[in-house]
Amino acid sequence: MREILVIGVGAGDPEQVTMQAVSALNRVDVFFVLDKGEVKQELVDLRSEILRRYATSKEYRVVVGRDPERDRTTPAYVEAVDDWRRRRADVIAELIAGDLGEDQVGAFLVWGDPSLYDSTLAILDDIAARGDLAFEVEVIPGISSVSTLAARHRIGLNQVGRPIQITTGRRLAAEWPDGVDDVVVMLDAQTAFTHHLDQDAHIYWGAYLGTPDELLISGPVHEVAAEIEKTRTEARERKGWIMDTYLLRRPKS
Amino acid sequence: MREILVIGVGAGDPEQVTMQAVSALNRVDVFFVLDKGEVKQELVDLRSEILRRYATSKEYRVVVGRDPERDRTTPAYVEAVDDWRRRRADVIAELIAGDLGEDQVGAFLVWGDPSLYDSTLAILDDIAARGDLAFEVEVIPGISSVSTLAARHRIGLNQVGRPIQITTGRRLAAEWPDGVDDVVVMLDAQTAFTHHLDQDAHIYWGAYLGTPDELLISGPVHEVAAEIEKTRTEARERKGWIMDTYLLRRPKS
Repeated sequence: MREILVIGVGAGDPEQVTMQAVSALNRVDVFFVLDKGEVKQELVDLRSEILRRYATSKEYRVVVGRDPERDRTTPAYVEAVDDWRRRRADVIAELIAGDLGEDQVGAFLVWGDPSLYDSTLAILDDIAARGDLAFEVEVIPGISSVSTLAARHRIGLNQVGRPIQITTGRRLAAEWPDGVDDVVVMLDAQTAFTHHLDQDAHIYWGAYLGTPDELLISGPVHEVAAEIEKTRTEARERKGWIMDTYLLRRPKS
Repeated sequence: MREILVIGVGAGDPEQVTMQAVSALNRVDVFFVLDKGEVKQELVDLRSEILRRYATSKEYRVVVGRDPERDRTTPAYVEAVDDWRRRRADVIAELIAGDLGEDQVGAFLVWGDPSLYDSTLAILDDIAARGDLAFEVEVIPGISSVSTLAARHRIGLNQVGRPIQITTGRRLAAEWPDGVDDVVVMLDAQTAFTHHLDQDAHIYWGAYLGTPDELLISGPVHEVAAEIEKTRTEARERKGWIMDTYLLRRPKS
């Protein structure tokens, strides 16, 4: 039976790869890559560097598919993502059927950890549910950008005995979530923390975590928000892209 | 200046150690261990195995301190933990002052990731705040039991665009948290999921994750709760200890 490995490769530092991921990389016949048609050449280079450094014990191929466009203009976020996933599933099913032999091992490399705001597993579930392509899936966990953020700021994510919420910028912009004082935000294109400058909260922000371009800023959110916005805008213009995440922490309410 | 490394070593599988952690392990002069006075010999052996396998390039010492007892009878949970941390800080400050040279590197190995429900960083902050012992801290993130749980069940932790809450058994036993449908529970000695059998929720449960004794059960929580309770009780009796975690997921409300 075909086997598909979904391998978490860490937040951006090739040294964050685990021993388990290295073993997995060396079992792979075909690495599948979706070309996002964007200018994140650095991420492409980083992925190549991981393969060059660790996938050393057998021959492999890299097969590139064209990532379908996602409709980012519609307010119907969930529907747009669902539609995009369906079209991605079409592309990926074609790659697997066309390029992976019946007894071969294919793989997708995922930045961070495959369990956090990544669609690869859901797409493979969709393809499996269609019933015309059989494969087994194995997941190798990776170091998430959230763990890396906490490590670089040398903090825990939770206060003693308290919960943590991991959410999106879209949701935090709408409201501070009920019942939690520690909020980790991923996928924030709109600097949603600026909606909460009235909170007595501390922010721990990081971008390009684990890479040589890493940026870290922390402080009371009403004091450092402007600095984060400025740093973020300049970095995005300079590099053409940004990946950032942050923790907002207010005293136990 | 003294340097203290706080190194996440994964959920229990030595293969979950990262390249970065291996580099860190090989810089250490003194590994500090708190002896919990319990019978988790398997965890002691696992830690030794990690050192034997990866800390190979220089000589090191392992220094063992006596972990103070925590008052588990009081309902004042946060105060009991605070008091316990203070006494732990006393023990650890003494170890560092007594056993680590001014220009040496000390380390604490942490199961999972140091940012999730672990007290090592808070204790080091406490010691630094006392002002009579100077050291630098570096944190190496690790694969958490939460990431491992998701990987072994081959699931994402979040639904599309939705938040995740990570919380404790104590809190889940009191109530299902507001505003979230995906709840990850750590530190649950009381099988708090049994308080939510009326929810239309699916549970993904795992114990001894990443080890040869790993246990996995999933299904509608009202159908599999009894099986999890039975499996959990038997395993704890057989091995003398248990570490487990789970995700409760209900359809988007």
